[in-house]
Amino acid sequence: MRNDIDLDYDLAAEIIEDLREDPMGEWFDLPDKTLASTLGDISSVAKEVQESSDYLVCVGIGGSYLGTRAVYEALDLENSEKSRTKLLFAGNSLSSFELKKILKKLEGKDFSLNVISKSGTTLEPALAYRILKKELISRYGAEKAKSRIILTTDPEKGALREEAEKNGYKTFDIPLGVGGRYSVLSPVGLFPLAVAGCDIGQLLNGALECKNSQVSSDSLETSMLVSYAFSRFYLYDECGCDVEVLASFEPRLLYFNEWWKQLFGESEGKNKQGIFPASVIYSTDLHSLGQYLQDGRRNIFETFLRVSSEKNPLTVPAEKDSHDGLDYLEGVPLTEISEKALQATMKAHDSGGISTFEIEVLDEDAENGISERSLGFLIFFFEVACAISATLQGVDPFDQPGVEKYKKEMYKLLGK
Amino acid sequence: MRNDIDLDYDLAAEIIEDLREDPMGEWFDLPDKTLASTLGDISSVAKEVQESSDYLVCVGIGGSYLGTRAVYEALDLENSEKSRTKLLFAGNSLSSFELKKILKKLEGKDFSLNVISKSGTTLEPALAYRILKKELISRYGAEKAKSRIILTTDPEKGALREEAEKNGYKTFDIPLGVGGRYSVLSPVGLFPLAVAGCDIGQLLNGALECKNSQVSSDSLETSMLVSYAFSRFYLYDECGCDVEVLASFEPRLLYFNEWWKQLFGESEGKNKQGIFPASVIYSTDLHSLGQYLQDGRRNIFETFLRVSSEKNPLTVPAEKDSHDGLDYLEGVPLTEISEKALQATMKAHDSGGISTFEIEVLDEDAENGISERSLGFLIFFFEVACAISATLQGVDPFDQPGVEKYKKEMYKLLGK
Repeated sequence: MRNDIDLDYDLAAEIIEDLREDPMGEWFDLPDKTLASTLGDISSVAKEVQESSDYLVCVGIGGSYLGTRAVYEALDLENSEKSRTKLLFAGNSLSSFELKKILKKLEGKDFSLNVISKSGTTLEPALAYRILKKELISRYGAEKAKSRIILTTDPEKGALREEAEKNGYKTFDIPLGVGGRYSVLSPVGLFPLAVAGCDIGQLLNGALECKNSQVSSDSLETSMLVSYAFSRFYLYDECGCDVEVLASFEPRLLYFNEWWKQLFGESEGKNKQGIFPASVIYSTDLHSLGQYLQDGRRNIFETFLRVSSEKNPLTVPAEKDSHDGLDYLEGVPLTEISEKALQATMKAHDSGGISTFEIEVLDEDAENGISERSLGFLIFFFEVACAISATLQGVDPFDQPGVEKYKKEMYKLLGK
Repeated sequence: MRNDIDLDYDLAAEIIEDLREDPMGEWFDLPDKTLASTLGDISSVAKEVQESSDYLVCVGIGGSYLGTRAVYEALDLENSEKSRTKLLFAGNSLSSFELKKILKKLEGKDFSLNVISKSGTTLEPALAYRILKKELISRYGAEKAKSRIILTTDPEKGALREEAEKNGYKTFDIPLGVGGRYSVLSPVGLFPLAVAGCDIGQLLNGALECKNSQVSSDSLETSMLVSYAFSRFYLYDECGCDVEVLASFEPRLLYFNEWWKQLFGESEGKNKQGIFPASVIYSTDLHSLGQYLQDGRRNIFETFLRVSSEKNPLTVPAEKDSHDGLDYLEGVPLTEISEKALQATMKAHDSGGISTFEIEVLDEDAENGISERSLGFLIFFFEVACAISATLQGVDPFDQPGVEKYKKEMYKLLGK
């Protein structure tokens, strides 16, 4: 963290107050307000799906996809015993090849569909939904298929809402004041994650801890979040750093970084400005982009994610007559070596002239080092930090005018 | 492609000549020279592994990992019937969690190890090797384990070479004049890919086609490769574009983009300069980084990868009383819609002030649109283009001094 800049805590308080009052700032209250109201409903529908389905196919793109996948992969729910029902992700590309792969995986398996889209007419998910719905109906018949379709969409209007009302599909609301990239802590992410065995209560608790400890009026002056948001703006505005790299040493955080890239890229990248968000997963990327980060252009700053060490890490075994020169590490846990690698990388890049942040989210109870609580904390941390940073840069954190442009061009070419 | 710049074909010829004569330019001849000599040996050992093993665990990092994984995923060999033996990738991180996942996958399965490292002492793969070798020996006994260890390493010296000679392990040579990020068409990538059912002859043929059609002395003036290499330097040097985004519409190319990022980032990112390489997979990233690319800072250029359409794509099915507004697309193949999306995206970003390249590698015989031939072509295409671009930028395309810095720091902290 940089300590050589003055943080304006009054400005921070003001920005946070404005965010809360912004019509699109409703996500700010998801950690507290979702709890009571929706959780019961989510859990009961999730149970039904767990009983009826081997797979829940999540049909969504962008903010209706990345957050769910980020948590699903970070917790490795694919290989966990917490739920028999695994997630598949469709509708996030136009690739026929990818959709065929999913249809093949579904052969001989029971499945349900969760379509996540406010309008219901976004091309990619709408196409995937049409194809998967046909498969569902041919498999279970039109009537029985109805109980296997759950739509997460606009509370009042839109194609999915109409269809749900006509057919009596189960639905969840996407709150009107929650944009896609800020929606993972709404039913958008909570429902499929609950199906996959995620403790969504803990996910929200983590977010609430962040809210209370980082952005409550009395916490601002000690807030890592406020410091991060202002420091990155300082680096951009004063030092000409226009690329931020989010660095993690855990490959299972790959999709968390992808979610982070969307959050910041879509919030800040407008009006011909913004910090370009990039992701590295070490050690692999120390042997790839690491060279660039060490010696390349100095317009970059780097944000390191540190999580807790897992409870029972592998240790370096003894080896007779070894050739690998690793005997000095015998008995050392891999987690300790990884921690040293993180420190070494920060030191090396720092000495190379790269400003580095360190964001540490520890949960000592986390069996695998990463828990629902720590992820909830991190998600809310970055959501608020992003909204503050974008505001400091003078852009609207909640719109994405540029995304509409390729859609217009595409619909033109498709002859719509 | 930009046509408004003068390409200096004599300079191109000169640079290519120098590359061939560079001690580290031996990779330039892999497409022709590997064929006869090594292929037979690779195929026979690959057959043995296919007979003995459900999994081949590839232990390597950086250039000893990314190229193999790029081809493995692009061809979806994981789900292909071409080989019963699937690949697992270890030693590319220090994560205890990831290595445990691999050990769990190996429970009750037969496996072999392919360790890929010139020195044999790079920390990440050396640690993974030690742990996996212990598992191998406890599973099969010290003697039988020997036939399940294949080392790809320096032809003469190094820890792995010594160990192989002592224990009589099977080995493959990493040619001295082939650096890690240029090594996928050597035994580094060819052996594990052959085990997984890849037609490595076709992979090399594709590379040879590229060599003959793009960089032979009589092809330079029509060469897409030379045009790409010079144009990207022009954009960097004249237009201040210091970020290049490689864009693909096929999610299975994710790791190809990662390989590309290493190739360019490690080759060009030194002396405080270089083009920062980033990757996007559309459509997902059109709903994330797409906003930044459309409206953010204009220091970016974008390179689109176009591959052939698969043979039997899914088509948009009819739907009675549909709500999704997609009836106008009934019967249209997804591949056609994806093609339109690519054109639309290029048009939109171009109109947003982003320079775009289009690299088209078609193989009409490719069942799935992407074949060994097209990948071999693309790999060699980018390797040569990268070497030329780096040379134009006045840096050595083949060294990576920066990567050593974090290693030094790390060994210090580890008390080596």
